[in-house]
Amino acid sequence: MSEKGMLIVLSGPSGVGKGTVRQAMVAKYGQQFKYSISMTTRQPRPGEVDGVDYYFRTRNEFETEIANGGMLEYAQYVGNYYGTPLRYVNQTLEQGQDVLLEIEVKGAMQVRSKVSDGVFIFLTPPDLHILQERIVKRGTDDMATIKRRMQTAREEINLMTNYDYAVVNDQVELAVDRIEQIIASEHLRVARVLDTYQSMLGED
Amino acid sequence: MSEKGMLIVLSGPSGVGKGTVRQAMVAKYGQQFKYSISMTTRQPRPGEVDGVDYYFRTRNEFETEIANGGMLEYAQYVGNYYGTPLRYVNQTLEQGQDVLLEIEVKGAMQVRSKVSDGVFIFLTPPDLHILQERIVKRGTDDMATIKRRMQTAREEINLMTNYDYAVVNDQVELAVDRIEQIIASEHLRVARVLDTYQSMLGED
Repeated sequence: MSEKGMLIVLSGPSGVGKGTVRQAMVAKYGQQFKYSISMTTRQPRPGEVDGVDYYFRTRNEFETEIANGGMLEYAQYVGNYYGTPLRYVNQTLEQGQDVLLEIEVKGAMQVRSKVSDGVFIFLTPPDLHILQERIVKRGTDDMATIKRRMQTAREEINLMTNYDYAVVNDQVELAVDRIEQIIASEHLRVARVLDTYQSMLGED
Repeated sequence: MSEKGMLIVLSGPSGVGKGTVRQAMVAKYGQQFKYSISMTTRQPRPGEVDGVDYYFRTRNEFETEIANGGMLEYAQYVGNYYGTPLRYVNQTLEQGQDVLLEIEVKGAMQVRSKVSDGVFIFLTPPDLHILQERIVKRGTDDMATIKRRMQTAREEINLMTNYDYAVVNDQVELAVDRIEQIIASEHLRVARVLDTYQSMLGED
């Protein structure tokens, strides 16, 4: 098949476990798509590796990329930049490979406006109380930050209407399998395969 | 969940194997949906049972149902009526259960116009030559009928644009699994689950 790859956007509120789900997806189904590594100005958390989890950059470096038109999307979130370098995404899609983005909600909305045939998946917490617990347990933020994140999460869940799918992150394994079903199913959408069928008809 | 059930419409060209795929779905996943038995005026094929495979009715009986507004959809196809009784479908959806229809293409388009949130799946032959082989092998129709069916099939494949998904019936087991993925994935669509999430937000 010479079809263009599919852009899969995994997003959701802060603390919902996007990074964990993405890591599990890469571990289990990593041969089926390419993960686009995000760029950020935030500090690495313990165990995070530059060029694997994120491209860790200074604010100055990040703003230079923005100025050069090199970002598919970017946003500031809790005082730091997060974004997706454009070049890798475009090259990979052109090669016919699916690309996975794991990005913040504001960035996802920018991608939605640019890539109308992307698949937009919103990862949801089982409920907001559990979200609060998770953020507290992570223990790397002060209370003011946590309160700000909770308010942001409420606003973000209201943004769910801008997504195609909502996947509950009740268990990472289950969330990953649901996302895999969505990806497989999206590849069967008429809008994605019509060209192939029309050329089949032409052969007759 | 008190959500309304989802209407799943399986259709495709004559001879593509809709009936076989539907039977395999019922056998493997029958507890997950209710199959809506179609009504037809055609003669039963060997092994087909009234009230199981179809409701077999006379033309007169069928036309009385139409006149009474009792059909969700109906069409004449190769000289016979095929259609879906309305009452069972509505009752089952209201109970929160998914309903599977396996119907002809003309009927599916009528359902599309009435049930905008249905899931419309087009079963496709691996290619039109294999479709021709299958029709010939079935051996119950004369050549004029086969030619008419082939022409109809070409027209129907052009109708694929009116469907949500295209599933190749290369192997029945694979087709069934693809359809199951589609159903699971459609249940995660934001448009279907938004009410649940909004009530969750309200609780906080």
